[in-house]
Amino acid sequence: MGEGERGEQGGGHRVAKNVLTPQAEDFPRWYQDVVAKAELAENGPARGTMTIRPWGYAIWEHVQSDMDRRIKATGHDNAAFPLLIPMSYLEREAEHVEGFSPELAVVTHAGGEELAEPLVVRPTSETVIGDAMSRWIQGYRDLPLKLNQWGNVVRWELRPRLFLRTTEFLWQEGHTAHATWRDAQDETLQILHEVYDATISELLAIPTVIGRKTERERFAGAETTYTLEGLMRDGKALQMGTSHHLGQNFAKGFDIAYTDADGERKLAWTTSWGVSARVVGGLIMSHGDDRGLRLPPRCAPAQVVVVAVRDEVLDAARDLSGRLRAAGVRVRLDERTNVGFGRRIVDWELKGVPVRLELGPRELDAGQVALARRDGDGAKDAVALDAVVDRMPGLLAEMQQALYDQALARREAATQDVQGVSDIDGPGFFRVPYKVVGDAGEDALNERGYSIRCLVTADGDVPGPRGDDDEDLIAYVSKAY
Amino acid sequence: MGEGERGEQGGGHRVAKNVLTPQAEDFPRWYQDVVAKAELAENGPARGTMTIRPWGYAIWEHVQSDMDRRIKATGHDNAAFPLLIPMSYLEREAEHVEGFSPELAVVTHAGGEELAEPLVVRPTSETVIGDAMSRWIQGYRDLPLKLNQWGNVVRWELRPRLFLRTTEFLWQEGHTAHATWRDAQDETLQILHEVYDATISELLAIPTVIGRKTERERFAGAETTYTLEGLMRDGKALQMGTSHHLGQNFAKGFDIAYTDADGERKLAWTTSWGVSARVVGGLIMSHGDDRGLRLPPRCAPAQVVVVAVRDEVLDAARDLSGRLRAAGVRVRLDERTNVGFGRRIVDWELKGVPVRLELGPRELDAGQVALARRDGDGAKDAVALDAVVDRMPGLLAEMQQALYDQALARREAATQDVQGVSDIDGPGFFRVPYKVVGDAGEDALNERGYSIRCLVTADGDVPGPRGDDDEDLIAYVSKAY
Repeated sequence: MGEGERGEQGGGHRVAKNVLTPQAEDFPRWYQDVVAKAELAENGPARGTMTIRPWGYAIWEHVQSDMDRRIKATGHDNAAFPLLIPMSYLEREAEHVEGFSPELAVVTHAGGEELAEPLVVRPTSETVIGDAMSRWIQGYRDLPLKLNQWGNVVRWELRPRLFLRTTEFLWQEGHTAHATWRDAQDETLQILHEVYDATISELLAIPTVIGRKTERERFAGAETTYTLEGLMRDGKALQMGTSHHLGQNFAKGFDIAYTDADGERKLAWTTSWGVSARVVGGLIMSHGDDRGLRLPPRCAPAQVVVVAVRDEVLDAARDLSGRLRAAGVRVRLDERTNVGFGRRIVDWELKGVPVRLELGPRELDAGQVALARRDGDGAKDAVALDAVVDRMPGLLAEMQQALYDQALARREAATQDVQGVSDIDGPGFFRVPYKVVGDAGEDALNERGYSIRCLVTADGDVPGPRGDDDEDLIAYVSKAY
Repeated sequence: MGEGERGEQGGGHRVAKNVLTPQAEDFPRWYQDVVAKAELAENGPARGTMTIRPWGYAIWEHVQSDMDRRIKATGHDNAAFPLLIPMSYLEREAEHVEGFSPELAVVTHAGGEELAEPLVVRPTSETVIGDAMSRWIQGYRDLPLKLNQWGNVVRWELRPRLFLRTTEFLWQEGHTAHATWRDAQDETLQILHEVYDATISELLAIPTVIGRKTERERFAGAETTYTLEGLMRDGKALQMGTSHHLGQNFAKGFDIAYTDADGERKLAWTTSWGVSARVVGGLIMSHGDDRGLRLPPRCAPAQVVVVAVRDEVLDAARDLSGRLRAAGVRVRLDERTNVGFGRRIVDWELKGVPVRLELGPRELDAGQVALARRDGDGAKDAVALDAVVDRMPGLLAEMQQALYDQALARREAATQDVQGVSDIDGPGFFRVPYKVVGDAGEDALNERGYSIRCLVTADGDVPGPRGDDDEDLIAYVSKAY
């Protein structure tokens, strides 16, 4: 055994204090610290690129798995489209190319020669998928066509931040085509609620505000953009995902058309929607505290860590891990008895494992294990060794709900109704009647570092497309990542 | 109902005959036809790129899922490394950059400006992962470090073929670091057998020959390359996956070093290994026939298709599908009673669904369903509707094994022992003593379009690295994709 580990036992909370910059002191610095020290991610060698380390990637795999199941259950098929897209494709939708041009990475040389036409590393795939749709769709029976792709995209980033804003990012992008405007609208909203909000609230335990983006925040090429906004612990918003009704903009540019039941040729209506690994950043900033990550059990790479305090309990610790695993719990066994005990506790707190079970000779003799909840204050409960496995599923479900409830309560406490732009100041969400903001008010807010995150109806519902009832909408305003 | 579908019933076999170029007439053309008509993939707009359509992608998802489970079970963690790599990184391993230079796609402009240093779209990730390993590995306790990445890579391709050889391809690449040469060797071989061969033989039902590559077929930067080779139905080989012992080549280039238990600084030993979506091409060419794909049930997007012949049986067909689904069978329901029956049968045969259940009014009245096995001659069995669900798991397991057995028997019939290079002529594998080939023999073979696919021991086992016992090795020689 190394020095001091027994002495540090129980002092995990105290020891961890110095590992991270406290949130209250410097939240962005705390974020950087926890991303590095929980071994979630780090910068890649090229500007703005990111390496996602195993602990961070395993969280993303849980997001993928949960969301993929919902995407398939709502009738979408996965496919893979090319990474490299001819520049001319982007130019077929004028607003789209104008919006993305400043962010493009361009391949000009390949196979040892200069290319006749430069290739863009895809910033998003509406163009290349629109081209495929124009071939795959002939008659009305080919509609709806509902596709999804898991992959990477590149948008050159001048102010990168790990997970939140990187030059390359991992995401899914859905692309669908429909016979009518209404069908495309239903799709756009179904994704928001049944796929995105379901995963973000039920898996990541993050409550969202769902609404429509203003004109200036709309996706380049969309008719309407909808968004899900989370409120982070520092009172700034994070856009967690977007869903776009593309109208017939890409249908026109790529001739996505079908013959209807009467033999008439008609343009289709398309949608696109995406969620990226940035939600892992949202997870960190929604639940993390001064000791590190706090992971909701459903997306935790390990839900329980069994810490074997000394060599003589290794067999018992292995047995306990095995019984938890057999009960369907994701468990890690920490056998590092050569590493200081305090450091091991700090590690698991940093990594946010929901439940820590400490097994030492004392506990084993008493037929017990010390249980610490990551969402608790560091206090431990003595639990009978033969009861702890049965208790675990209920405890994990309770912690999943508790993290959501805390995040929701925090957001509600940080949300206030105001009557004008001049009342907006400080962290949190400000709800303000959209009609008193207008373009001039949005300019003024943007200049002060605020933005309209989304528009909702007076009842808090998702509004339709831009229209007469915009008069009655409420704008959610905040600073944002 | 459309015209003639009843008349075509039972003639599915005959009707399909004209859909594809027969294998015996022109195998490469047959391959192109089946890839297009089974809607597996198509060319992308940029040279050599590929779009994988939903039916092809679903097969790849089964490969991913099966292999990912095995990769994790053998102690590897998934992670994600950057797509864009500074050119200077590749140059740190001389043989590596020399090998890959002709195939690189290079980003020279990004964010509207010319880059100071060009970025390579990764052709493989030894360099960028080697750089990360050098930071993540400090002491001997950090070893082994066993990582895997699912992603895309780009190698400029002048003679692209869908799935088999494309400019961008999807794959997994494993990268590990170890304390000793022996540990790295064990890893290299474990992957070959416990991960790759397990998935390829048990999921894809493709038998492989596993052996060592010759010097000229070695991966650029490796000490030793091992391979799994499948034999396609036209008697050409396809490399299904490779596993490389990288020696200390990348450890030197990237300073991947550790402090051992005695406090001494030592270079690590690394490995890398990859399997790509090219195995889907291998699947097509291992099992397909003149009617289309024949999918082993374990990797089939749908294992059973229930074809509702007419509208009046739709309820019964839905009930049957539901019961199959509840029994854990992947099932599709074909309700397209408006499409000619013959065309529907041709479609499902093209797509290779293992079992087709046809339910018409006649069958329903008799309490039966007509069952056609895709690996059969087109004949149908009448099976009692209330027995077919129970029978399905056994039938699917039997078909999985039958496809493997057929492929193995075909390969064995197409493998012959010869005593010299001059005896090698025609399709299939030629087993020839390696010592009678030598470099000159390998030159002569290459000029005639043959290559040494791999070297095995006299007992058919995987040999160690290049050494004294090379005298006794057997070379597998064939034409190849």
